[in-house]
Amino acid sequence: MTELYRKVALIGMGLIGSSLARGIRERALAHSIHGVARSRQTIEVARELGLVDRMGASLEEAVEGADLVMLCTPVRTFGKIARSIAPHLASGATLTDVGSVKRYVIGAVSPHVPEHVQFVPAHPLAGTERSGPRAGFADLFVNRWCLITPLEDADSAAVDKLAEFWRRLGSQVDFMDAGHHDVVLAVTSHVPHLIAYSMVGTADHLHRVSNSEVIQYSAAGFRDFTRIAASDPTMWHDVFLSNREATLDILGRFTEELFALQRAIRIGEGDTLLEYFQRTRAIRRGIVEAGQDTDRPDFGRAVRR
Amino acid sequence: MTELYRKVALIGMGLIGSSLARGIRERALAHSIHGVARSRQTIEVARELGLVDRMGASLEEAVEGADLVMLCTPVRTFGKIARSIAPHLASGATLTDVGSVKRYVIGAVSPHVPEHVQFVPAHPLAGTERSGPRAGFADLFVNRWCLITPLEDADSAAVDKLAEFWRRLGSQVDFMDAGHHDVVLAVTSHVPHLIAYSMVGTADHLHRVSNSEVIQYSAAGFRDFTRIAASDPTMWHDVFLSNREATLDILGRFTEELFALQRAIRIGEGDTLLEYFQRTRAIRRGIVEAGQDTDRPDFGRAVRR
Repeated sequence: MTELYRKVALIGMGLIGSSLARGIRERALAHSIHGVARSRQTIEVARELGLVDRMGASLEEAVEGADLVMLCTPVRTFGKIARSIAPHLASGATLTDVGSVKRYVIGAVSPHVPEHVQFVPAHPLAGTERSGPRAGFADLFVNRWCLITPLEDADSAAVDKLAEFWRRLGSQVDFMDAGHHDVVLAVTSHVPHLIAYSMVGTADHLHRVSNSEVIQYSAAGFRDFTRIAASDPTMWHDVFLSNREATLDILGRFTEELFALQRAIRIGEGDTLLEYFQRTRAIRRGIVEAGQDTDRPDFGRAVRR
Repeated sequence: MTELYRKVALIGMGLIGSSLARGIRERALAHSIHGVARSRQTIEVARELGLVDRMGASLEEAVEGADLVMLCTPVRTFGKIARSIAPHLASGATLTDVGSVKRYVIGAVSPHVPEHVQFVPAHPLAGTERSGPRAGFADLFVNRWCLITPLEDADSAAVDKLAEFWRRLGSQVDFMDAGHHDVVLAVTSHVPHLIAYSMVGTADHLHRVSNSEVIQYSAAGFRDFTRIAASDPTMWHDVFLSNREATLDILGRFTEELFALQRAIRIGEGDTLLEYFQRTRAIRRGIVEAGQDTDRPDFGRAVRR
């Protein structure tokens, strides 16, 4: 297969950026990759691992002559970065991102994008609870969805090429409106993360149950919450502040549901609980059938001894 | 190693009962196993799989001459079963259970236990999101905790023998007061399950986000919630109604935490969020260090294509 892009600039070399570097290399999707990071440590690790052809701190050098520029830093940094790189972007280049929220990103980036550059926002639904350049791997995006939220006046050739890029990384690609994306993600990712953080925080505050006990007896349930709540703090801070409206909307609905169940427990309404639990079990079956998780029993998974 | 018990009666042949049958066999912990189930289908499956030496519907036959009787049905059935089997329990027998709540179980079972029988409540912190006799496996309890909550007047020889039984099944054993057990489990398991049910229910109700989208884009976060929310409905119905007090207490504290985070999002208090998320990440590290989960990145786990 031919290279899709001449030069890719990866701005940010964390879990996603470093996975992109590895994936692009392995699948020969670009002639060269130029990585950028702010921290000296990240730059050194990326060089040591040989993740990219050139690695440095200069945004200007990275985007110069690049036909694909990817923003892979926390979303609250996008506006500032877009302003900095705007004068240096090559004519005909595609600027894209991997941020978990899309309306905010479009608002922050679009005003800075020059006429001769195509801005195509995207969001790969992939990640692990680890972060940093060592955490990445080439297959992170395989069989995961990448949601592209093109602007109204988007150039279809640029959009199609980026979609093809993600497909070659192993992803399934879908297109949707940015606002709708933000509500879907609030339900499937943002609010679940906030809840997991709250539950782990609750346990931490509780003096009647010592921390060591909570950790020692973290059987199925709490253990899975801690996994979710271990995700990158800065990234999630940015997500919640940047998808405030949808997050608060879904959170309100969640609280209603929780209070209904709480009431059923308090007044001993067993049938309500049973029906509810049967319904949620059916949704799980749907997810396994959609191929977005395995049906192997994960609660019983092996642990190191 | 010598057999620990002569005859074990397993009342209930679901995930836990059938895993016990397999584990007892594989490790030769008893001379014979007699299984009981109410449903014809479960009896047939258990016979087909050859899980036990005898399998039937009669409680009386199962407990006759058994020196270990294990209650492995949903906890709300224990009182009735205890009353039925009481007259048929052998002198010197140990009666135990695997229920997820302990104060309720002690209240429901103790009044029926004859003088010549030792009742030793226990709770293996093990399970998967599957249920039924086909779901069990011999290693389910390996490296998992089994919490034993002995009554004040318990016979230490009977308690020690049961602890040895669980250790030989691969578990680590700890002892605690029944009331404390119920609070610890409310934090680490019961409330997390209730929250997962509520979140999956919220998604299900939401008409702006079609069900297929929720399922299709159930990236890390929601996907893990559905896994939790797929657990056996009857078992969880019983747990919540039987550990009402501790569940509502912890739920109240969780709601406080959630509202504090919700407020921080609403008013844009970024530092509060960041500090909170950094703290919860540290708790996750503790769990991995305690050996209760692996540190391999699970969010990126392979899925079937």
